[in-house]
Amino acid sequence: MYEITMASAYYKSGKHNDNAAFDLFFRKNPFDGEFTVFAGLSEVVNFVKNFRFTDEDIDYICNNAPKCDPEFRNWLKNIDTSTVKIYGLKEGSICFPRLPVMRIEGPLGICQLLESALLNLISFPSLIATNAARMRLASGKDKKLIEFGLRRAQGPDGAVSASRYSYLGGFDGTSNMLAGKLFDIPVSGTQAHAYIQSFSGLDEIKDLEFTDSEGKRRDLTGAVLKYQSKITNGNPNDGELASFISYAAAFPRDFLALVDTYDTLNSGIPNFLCVALALKEFGFEPVGIRLDSGDLAHLSKQVRKVFNNTGKKFKVDFSALKIVASNEINESTLASLERQGHEIDIFGIGTHLVTCQAQPSLGCVYKLVEVNDEPRIKLSQEATKVTIPGRKQCYRLIGREGYPLADVMLMPDENPPEVGKRFLCCHPFEKVKRTFIIPSRVITLHHLYWDGDDTEQLPSLEESRKYAREQLECTRPDHLRFTNPTPYKVSLSERLFNFMQELWSKEIPTGELD
Amino acid sequence: MYEITMASAYYKSGKHNDNAAFDLFFRKNPFDGEFTVFAGLSEVVNFVKNFRFTDEDIDYICNNAPKCDPEFRNWLKNIDTSTVKIYGLKEGSICFPRLPVMRIEGPLGICQLLESALLNLISFPSLIATNAARMRLASGKDKKLIEFGLRRAQGPDGAVSASRYSYLGGFDGTSNMLAGKLFDIPVSGTQAHAYIQSFSGLDEIKDLEFTDSEGKRRDLTGAVLKYQSKITNGNPNDGELASFISYAAAFPRDFLALVDTYDTLNSGIPNFLCVALALKEFGFEPVGIRLDSGDLAHLSKQVRKVFNNTGKKFKVDFSALKIVASNEINESTLASLERQGHEIDIFGIGTHLVTCQAQPSLGCVYKLVEVNDEPRIKLSQEATKVTIPGRKQCYRLIGREGYPLADVMLMPDENPPEVGKRFLCCHPFEKVKRTFIIPSRVITLHHLYWDGDDTEQLPSLEESRKYAREQLECTRPDHLRFTNPTPYKVSLSERLFNFMQELWSKEIPTGELD
Repeated sequence: MYEITMASAYYKSGKHNDNAAFDLFFRKNPFDGEFTVFAGLSEVVNFVKNFRFTDEDIDYICNNAPKCDPEFRNWLKNIDTSTVKIYGLKEGSICFPRLPVMRIEGPLGICQLLESALLNLISFPSLIATNAARMRLASGKDKKLIEFGLRRAQGPDGAVSASRYSYLGGFDGTSNMLAGKLFDIPVSGTQAHAYIQSFSGLDEIKDLEFTDSEGKRRDLTGAVLKYQSKITNGNPNDGELASFISYAAAFPRDFLALVDTYDTLNSGIPNFLCVALALKEFGFEPVGIRLDSGDLAHLSKQVRKVFNNTGKKFKVDFSALKIVASNEINESTLASLERQGHEIDIFGIGTHLVTCQAQPSLGCVYKLVEVNDEPRIKLSQEATKVTIPGRKQCYRLIGREGYPLADVMLMPDENPPEVGKRFLCCHPFEKVKRTFIIPSRVITLHHLYWDGDDTEQLPSLEESRKYAREQLECTRPDHLRFTNPTPYKVSLSERLFNFMQELWSKEIPTGELD
Repeated sequence: MYEITMASAYYKSGKHNDNAAFDLFFRKNPFDGEFTVFAGLSEVVNFVKNFRFTDEDIDYICNNAPKCDPEFRNWLKNIDTSTVKIYGLKEGSICFPRLPVMRIEGPLGICQLLESALLNLISFPSLIATNAARMRLASGKDKKLIEFGLRRAQGPDGAVSASRYSYLGGFDGTSNMLAGKLFDIPVSGTQAHAYIQSFSGLDEIKDLEFTDSEGKRRDLTGAVLKYQSKITNGNPNDGELASFISYAAAFPRDFLALVDTYDTLNSGIPNFLCVALALKEFGFEPVGIRLDSGDLAHLSKQVRKVFNNTGKKFKVDFSALKIVASNEINESTLASLERQGHEIDIFGIGTHLVTCQAQPSLGCVYKLVEVNDEPRIKLSQEATKVTIPGRKQCYRLIGREGYPLADVMLMPDENPPEVGKRFLCCHPFEKVKRTFIIPSRVITLHHLYWDGDDTEQLPSLEESRKYAREQLECTRPDHLRFTNPTPYKVSLSERLFNFMQELWSKEIPTGELD
């Protein structure tokens, strides 16, 4: 409604075609960290490409916005986003506060209308991708991370976005089949408690059909019960055992059992082992188990020990059995598990990943920085909320060791930093904080992705995922670490710094107290 | 993927047509409170009504799920949700942990497939409605609450859901025009910083067209400048003044100005007042101002004082001017503003409302409670995670003073509680906690909303909103309060309590330590 009302007021004062530039950026990295993974670019470009109002939309708008005259109706009907330009970072880029992740240029009226939608389409994807990347850093490279969040996400499309962008940020798959289908993400998911509870005893699987790996008819239940009599620990639940047998019969190559329905160590694990041993006997490799409650570090170590001992006792190799863990896992849990030591191979993560429980919004903003080639500043009593005026050239300066040292913004007509030459980087607000950098490499950060037409091929999800991983690998680890990470420098050229200070003191009124 | 895999395993073991009942419930009220507002029912019924897989879906499923044979394909293709029954609370009901907000009955295979989707469709709506209701309680009945969250919501549809269910929970409107259009919610929104920044000085509004309330051409800028010379306080910014004049010229009946772009008290307010006085002179009523930064309690009081003094000085009535406040407002801010005293009439609330920052997920669960008339229990080492077995009759018992005293669950064949007769209510887990209640009224909580056909007219958003408000009004205030609210009783009949204990001890294996 703001955007419509403002567009209408621009239209009435004849400013709707003024040439505007808006920066889209955030002011603080999420999750108490010092980096963010940029995502959402492709959705923005597609949104802008297809942006138009139907007659029905316009009727609604004009019945609800103040004073909607025929000329403005007509303007709304003929909005042409081919007059808009979208500059942005590459999707999957590591990025930092205040440097615009996108700049939108074009007629003031149209750029204004895009504000809320663009913020929505960048904030949540970038937040999820960052959350996923942080969980990947906390769990280590060799673990498998699966997104399990559909049931807990904020709406059906919140769930699909979460699957998509957690994959971009470094997850390996999702349990959401719609997301899998739409974005070609590997899917996984086996059984939940209901399956196990639906069985009450062994009589329910009397007529089980089962053939071994060579296609011969076999008595799976008989074999399982033979092993059961040899596995003495625990006091297993019969319904659970029946459910495992029936599941193994249905999917003998995909037997992964949820073991905590009744009691993990006293029922789930012994029941799993009997079925696993029988499957082995018939030529199949059981996959493993899932823990969904209890102390995951302790249980996983206990379970691994039982697996090894049972393998030894029955002379079978159980070393490839996977332990999957789920149950309210977040970044801190992963970090704490790493510290304690554990035997988990695969993490299933839902709520904390998809809702970003630790910080459910990135807080992106969309600020006017230039009108008709004249830079604008948005002031604030808080210095960190002041915007950096004008269209800016943005570069990343890479140091001798190959790590990025700083991002720097320059005025449009300045000479870019050069390899091997000293470049003065100024803190955006504090005059005394400045440093020379001699870059070994200079990377241009903004690319033009929409200029009335797709100007660059939009990256595939797989490409952006790969790019994000590479970016994280070549970032200095102290910027990425969980505890007290080092802030990354985002700087201004000296000319831009001075220009901003000048504009600032010109626009701000002097206060008065009495 | 779980649901598909399980359905496939049920199918293979011939259990897919077993008669199942699942409870959908939550274990803990959100936001450290003691109540929840139930929402999402209509979406669930519509989802179930339209639930089917396309051939393309089935191809995808069968390429990705383990062992998908032609018979299962065929079953997927012919899923018929007219065999499913949905019982639920009325949308907008106040509800409490453990009592099922819905019960789904039907073939085990189909009910299982619905799990994740139904959880998704209930959790977020109920969470948002509860969050909105809590904000309404914190702000008081006479304030206007507008949802401003599109830019910060979790995905575009997360935003639309947030608008819809915050309205249900007691908000008055939204700034999201799509939500307004889809659900007939009042919309509002005036201007943001970009509008003000887009003006740099008075020369930009030279050719302003303006007519007074009687249609006569008038010099608005001249009138404004005349008042400016008489308003001595502050050091106002000219660009801001130009933007206010242009906005007032466009919408003289809807002039609500954002006053914190440069400096609220030294620029925004004096600029607003000059324009407001000029509008008054020409027969229009200015609407008010919006504060978007700073100390809202203090500023609102200062601004009200300036409004009153200016009104007195120029002999105009400024008492109807509205003060709107936005900027990261949450429930605690509202409560704290109430304590401090303030002069705000309207709150615009975004991030904290729509992402439910204080707790972004309700954590609903969907548990199998009965198969073929045989009750099932899901055990857990944590007593509070044990499910209450079987299909249950659910009643709310109203006390002498008209307030609900307890909700109670009974076995299907028990006699319901009767008005004026003692009924023994047992705590679900603790044997010693039990109390007699003599209800003055007994309310049946579950209604059948889907039985292969819509069995009850689904309530409109407006009806559910009204119902939620009535429910809150007739709930004892100590259950609703912000600090240390009193837990509401959710109980079992004695028979259900004993039955559950019996099943529990039968199913749980005895532990063993060595």
